[in-house]
Amino acid sequence: MASKGVTVGLVGFGTIGAGVAKVLINNHDVIAQRLGFPLDLVHVADLDLESDRGIDLGDIRFDSDAPALVTNPDVDIVVELVGGYDFARKLCLDGINAGKHIVTANKALLAVHGNEIFGAASQKGVDVAFEAAVGGGIPVLRALREGLAANEIQSLYGILNGTTNFVLTEMERTGADFEVVLEQAQELGYAEADPTFDVEGVDAAHKLALLTSMAFGSTLDFKSIPTEGISQLTPLDFESAESNGYRIKLLGIAKRHVEADGSETIESRVHPTLIPRSSMLANVDAAMNAVAIRGDAVGPTLYYGAGAGEMPTAGAVVGDLMEIAREVRREQSGRVAPLAFPQETLKPKPLRALGDLVSRFYVRIEALDRPGVLAKITGALGEQGVGIESIHQQGASPGEVSVPVVLWTHEVRESNMRDALKTIDTLAEVTAASNVIRIEEDL
Amino acid sequence: MASKGVTVGLVGFGTIGAGVAKVLINNHDVIAQRLGFPLDLVHVADLDLESDRGIDLGDIRFDSDAPALVTNPDVDIVVELVGGYDFARKLCLDGINAGKHIVTANKALLAVHGNEIFGAASQKGVDVAFEAAVGGGIPVLRALREGLAANEIQSLYGILNGTTNFVLTEMERTGADFEVVLEQAQELGYAEADPTFDVEGVDAAHKLALLTSMAFGSTLDFKSIPTEGISQLTPLDFESAESNGYRIKLLGIAKRHVEADGSETIESRVHPTLIPRSSMLANVDAAMNAVAIRGDAVGPTLYYGAGAGEMPTAGAVVGDLMEIAREVRREQSGRVAPLAFPQETLKPKPLRALGDLVSRFYVRIEALDRPGVLAKITGALGEQGVGIESIHQQGASPGEVSVPVVLWTHEVRESNMRDALKTIDTLAEVTAASNVIRIEEDL
Repeated sequence: MASKGVTVGLVGFGTIGAGVAKVLINNHDVIAQRLGFPLDLVHVADLDLESDRGIDLGDIRFDSDAPALVTNPDVDIVVELVGGYDFARKLCLDGINAGKHIVTANKALLAVHGNEIFGAASQKGVDVAFEAAVGGGIPVLRALREGLAANEIQSLYGILNGTTNFVLTEMERTGADFEVVLEQAQELGYAEADPTFDVEGVDAAHKLALLTSMAFGSTLDFKSIPTEGISQLTPLDFESAESNGYRIKLLGIAKRHVEADGSETIESRVHPTLIPRSSMLANVDAAMNAVAIRGDAVGPTLYYGAGAGEMPTAGAVVGDLMEIAREVRREQSGRVAPLAFPQETLKPKPLRALGDLVSRFYVRIEALDRPGVLAKITGALGEQGVGIESIHQQGASPGEVSVPVVLWTHEVRESNMRDALKTIDTLAEVTAASNVIRIEEDL
Repeated sequence: MASKGVTVGLVGFGTIGAGVAKVLINNHDVIAQRLGFPLDLVHVADLDLESDRGIDLGDIRFDSDAPALVTNPDVDIVVELVGGYDFARKLCLDGINAGKHIVTANKALLAVHGNEIFGAASQKGVDVAFEAAVGGGIPVLRALREGLAANEIQSLYGILNGTTNFVLTEMERTGADFEVVLEQAQELGYAEADPTFDVEGVDAAHKLALLTSMAFGSTLDFKSIPTEGISQLTPLDFESAESNGYRIKLLGIAKRHVEADGSETIESRVHPTLIPRSSMLANVDAAMNAVAIRGDAVGPTLYYGAGAGEMPTAGAVVGDLMEIAREVRREQSGRVAPLAFPQETLKPKPLRALGDLVSRFYVRIEALDRPGVLAKITGALGEQGVGIESIHQQGASPGEVSVPVVLWTHEVRESNMRDALKTIDTLAEVTAASNVIRIEEDL
């Protein structure tokens, strides 16, 4: 095996499983560059051997024998994506007993059976990783485990369920009733046919159980978390929230308290919550997720991204695979590279010239308020093919020698823009070098 | 050394250095719990041996001999916090040659001399960690290195400098000129006496150089990054931005392109940028930092928090120390714990009863529009000590049997609130169980 990569077996070849296979196959090279060795998918198991998942497995073993996969001696790491409780639990425990590391996205399984599964893994000395189980592709578990490890965590607020956040965003936007918006969400694929787990807060509570343990070092205790959903909310609630400067979000909340007698208690709860419009969390819309974590050293932090979906979730699963693969191959691969890629693989890459940037621009020109000046400016722009979206000249106050002309352009190459401004800045009426701000829309 | 912890030497005992010492000493126990072994500060070096840093070093060695510290055989990991270029570079290289791992917050040093320093560390097989150099306490480098490792990174937008973000936020809020706001920022301690590095975008470009390499696997190339600052912006720019639905932010931007001939280029630039008000980045105010990263699998993500300051920066330094300490003690400590604390140290912790929650509440009551109903409701609340901030009864339309009464309370224990609602829900005029939404302000 010395020259081969670390090997992966995948149980469950549905939407997320297909995404994981796509990332492992399509991003094989960049993953191998980052790791210093390849990460190879060698075995896939699913009861459905027929459906087209849009990915060619080539000569990778593909069968319906999940129990054989989790003990396959050619597999280093098992990815469990079958979902549910009993069969998934047995696969994980059998894999652990066979010395396999486990990666899973199954929050329900871990919230309910995590104490048993993590205990077995700890005894056997193998890893169980589950970044994809909370916040989809957002590396929030890693932040708690590593980035904020020096902090005593004080509080955590999470928008942990995309379905409910989509419904709340639409109820606020449209003023419609819960049932109407839920039906739309189902039609758009944002809510399942039976939406109970999402709508009543159970999925958020599964995730909050994991986050609470990781924040405070407490045993997993899903069943004790008070949980309320969003089905009782009405349009009036959103109107009243808005007129008072609030928005309504379904939050998972966890806090740590030191009581008067010095003992430690924690809060862990899921319910609709009014939060100030100006807070970062209040601006998390549609199906997006975010977790705000406050540590005693770092203060407030926030992690935002897609909380579900094929590729975000698959990316998180493969991130976990890579971290475990580094452990498996530590002796060969050495340490984590400081710049994320092994030092010897870094290469100079040409920087694109700023003149090649295509963007809309905001331009401010200081010019004397004489007849014909706008014609000269727009003429110079037109010669370079710079389209004008809007132009505004501020009237001069008596005694002022020049006034600002503000214009917003259509998309254009920066070099054309600059050439036009060179001409404009030499006009007799222009009193100072013009000022440009680039516009970015796609963020 | 078998029973002792991993050891740390600290060069530079200024504000950040004192913060690092505070975290290592004050959070010693929670850090030891997370690691499974202690992390011990054993040597501090600084030219100033007199100033009071508000921390008692006890019997930790404290002298002015930085060169001796970086080769001290009792030290496993060196924290470099002297700042600047030449002396810091020599300390880092001498430490690396002596087999020490290095943790630093010095982005200027790494942006300019990183290729040399990382190269030396790679050859010697030691770690150089610098989470604190970008985004202060936000674990954004860890996200790039590990959490998003399975992704091809497509773009990165960062508010990387707190001073300039504070100035921009205040210029927008007050309509004042740049010079006026800068002076206020200096008085408040948000800007230095010589603000050039911040205001002209150099500090942001240092950080962007590191992020660009980590995102795209390119050699560090700070000097090629086009960099513009914010000193030329005027109140009119902010007015015009606002009336068009934009805000102005100083962004570090990095993108990857595949050109028409199949070759790869990258963009890396720092300049004031107009971004849509509705974007998450546009809502990052005052001295806060945030980085938005888009990966091919995960889609858009964002990382937000304090970008500077004693304790946020110190927390990030200690997070790096802990990650390296795990490597140093791997044989003894085993693997990273899945729930962030070693499995055997997890303990059940009592959950605080929801009745003990103290909060403001939003309450919606459905009641018949009869004279005296408000008196009965407010009376029941008053009996339980529930203060009312505002109350609003919607007028009944003809034919309606009941109307909603909406009220917002002052802070009160939830159990008192619930007792009052029990009484209210039994009133003859109340037609449905009342509805409560909790309010969270502090996020």
